[in-house]
Amino acid sequence: MKRVEFSFVYQDKNSSARLGRLKRGNYEIETPSFFPVATQATVKSLSPQELSECGVEGILTNAYHLYLRPGVDIIRHLGGIHKFMHYFGLIITDSGGYQIFSLEGLRRSEDGGVSFTSHIDGSLHFLTPEKVIEIQEAIDSDIWVHLDECLKYPVLFSRARSSLQRTLEWARRSWSKFQRLKETKQMGQMLLGVIQGATYPDLRKQAVEEMLKIGFRHFSLGGLSVGEPFDLRYNIVSKTIAELPSSSLRYLMGVGKPADILEAVECGIDLFDCILPTRLGRSGTAFTSKGRLIIRDARFRRDESPVDRNCSCFVCQNFSRAYLRHLINAQEILAARLLSYHNVFWYENFMSNMREAIKNDSFIKFKKEFLDEYHNQV
Amino acid sequence: MKRVEFSFVYQDKNSSARLGRLKRGNYEIETPSFFPVATQATVKSLSPQELSECGVEGILTNAYHLYLRPGVDIIRHLGGIHKFMHYFGLIITDSGGYQIFSLEGLRRSEDGGVSFTSHIDGSLHFLTPEKVIEIQEAIDSDIWVHLDECLKYPVLFSRARSSLQRTLEWARRSWSKFQRLKETKQMGQMLLGVIQGATYPDLRKQAVEEMLKIGFRHFSLGGLSVGEPFDLRYNIVSKTIAELPSSSLRYLMGVGKPADILEAVECGIDLFDCILPTRLGRSGTAFTSKGRLIIRDARFRRDESPVDRNCSCFVCQNFSRAYLRHLINAQEILAARLLSYHNVFWYENFMSNMREAIKNDSFIKFKKEFLDEYHNQV
Repeated sequence: MKRVEFSFVYQDKNSSARLGRLKRGNYEIETPSFFPVATQATVKSLSPQELSECGVEGILTNAYHLYLRPGVDIIRHLGGIHKFMHYFGLIITDSGGYQIFSLEGLRRSEDGGVSFTSHIDGSLHFLTPEKVIEIQEAIDSDIWVHLDECLKYPVLFSRARSSLQRTLEWARRSWSKFQRLKETKQMGQMLLGVIQGATYPDLRKQAVEEMLKIGFRHFSLGGLSVGEPFDLRYNIVSKTIAELPSSSLRYLMGVGKPADILEAVECGIDLFDCILPTRLGRSGTAFTSKGRLIIRDARFRRDESPVDRNCSCFVCQNFSRAYLRHLINAQEILAARLLSYHNVFWYENFMSNMREAIKNDSFIKFKKEFLDEYHNQV
Repeated sequence: MKRVEFSFVYQDKNSSARLGRLKRGNYEIETPSFFPVATQATVKSLSPQELSECGVEGILTNAYHLYLRPGVDIIRHLGGIHKFMHYFGLIITDSGGYQIFSLEGLRRSEDGGVSFTSHIDGSLHFLTPEKVIEIQEAIDSDIWVHLDECLKYPVLFSRARSSLQRTLEWARRSWSKFQRLKETKQMGQMLLGVIQGATYPDLRKQAVEEMLKIGFRHFSLGGLSVGEPFDLRYNIVSKTIAELPSSSLRYLMGVGKPADILEAVECGIDLFDCILPTRLGRSGTAFTSKGRLIIRDARFRRDESPVDRNCSCFVCQNFSRAYLRHLINAQEILAARLLSYHNVFWYENFMSNMREAIKNDSFIKFKKEFLDEYHNQV
């Protein structure tokens, strides 16, 4: 496996927005970048070839989901996740901590790890931090995330503090397992450290210090976008980033809406993933430069225009809103496909324009103009 | 609209299998040909571009379905069915007679036409033969089918005879409406006559004679594949074809399985449509040279090989049975897409091989060899 590396490239002169480079061997991508979600080893409704057409350079899949189905022995047997999916861009695996901690009443967290009941067949499982590293080694993704404890918002300081201690302990064990694997195998993967600490700046600061001491150099910001207000979220993001070295990759997991991404990039975030473009695509909603359009609406029944006049994607070049609305109404799979395609293309184009703005030190102007046209939709 | 024409080209020296040419202006296709079904203005799960990749040269859509949803005024407003779907191969519209007559208890047939309750919203409708022609004119498909009365198998001779009289009367009114439209508009469409008569050779013979008298020159064989035994079906097909001029296009609607297609081509059928490749694709079954494979089966969970080693389609070049099985199991849309794609490609390749065999006067040999390898699956 070729070495996965991140480097900081350029800082916008008028904000904390920045350009970076994420690479695996000769495969290089520019950040800020948006990765669509492929929970079950497929970006829902899209083929790997279409992802490339849309400008996608990496995706996020889920260790927990793949561990349960199809099982990691199968993915290993098939030659790893890239070959299994026939997708050769960057692949991050989320540990699945978030999914496990959503299984309210079906899981129990203890110091050793977390036990839970499968959402698929009710079977019982026990995952330790070490096991989660082994799972990702079998999956053979490029960028790994260790097991952490995920909290909801709001949460008491004392609860957040004790949970952080557990996450830090799990991070330590994960790092140590990761290093042992590296010693025995030729491995170039990157293991991200998850910064927890809820909405408490002191805890976030402590988390960063401890994680750096353990040895982590690249990070994801966890425990955000779990119900907290917009301003509080970016207050925490910005304070956490202030503690991180500029050479660190900063990944804001599960975010988000276009306005969220702009705000986070302004704080200095490099990487995003979100189900939004595909989930909304499947339900008949399209992203456009003028805000979201619910193509299912009756007002589009005779509309000959494309989803977004300013979009150069395959869908906007070939199909009308009226046809897409008909497909949605008739519950045709092609509706989900075409709107997911457009939405993913739209997101990648949005990111590309943002990177261009950073290069020109005009991120703030870009953000304002985008939001003005987007009707400040959040 | 450019003129749609059929011509008989070549007869296999050892059977009634034959080559023909179906054209619309400069767009020419060779028969025997298989058209996938696009009931609601989409071949389920596939894009028009993928249809071309699969070798599809024409599709069948449904006047009844499109009349109910999205409504033919919308299709006319959007520039006709080709532009609406962004599909520029040949498009046949089935009248929807078959669908209406399946609405047991929800429809009433009388001499004037047929009244029925919409399967979508319960609204009441009355369709006459003339109205069905007008609907197809609004849809602007290339090849039309008139309203007919469809019977199940088995049916008494007296019932089949009186039903045939009604179909002949409706055919007469349809033809006359079609001619009146042609006089007032520049229209190149072809109207097919539907030959009914159940499993009674005398009625089939009478049907052909009357339809030729009315003026029809190209035909679809209706009222077959409705539950009758295989041998009886091809006995009727073969006797009916014997009555038709060799210059006539012969379309066997709704057929079928590979063994059915071989039998029908041997009788001299030129055109087919069937939901099978896409319906089975969506449920996780693949066509291969060695018979159908239920990819959902647990035995494929670790299988690295493609669906069909002898297939050169995009799916067989890039994905394993194990990955497809995982997608089916996880109920992912991509499973439906990839298996529908493979199946449609496989059908078109099957037809292409068949045409090649007819050119070499070796259809009978081709049929035997195919069925031997296909394990005589019907």
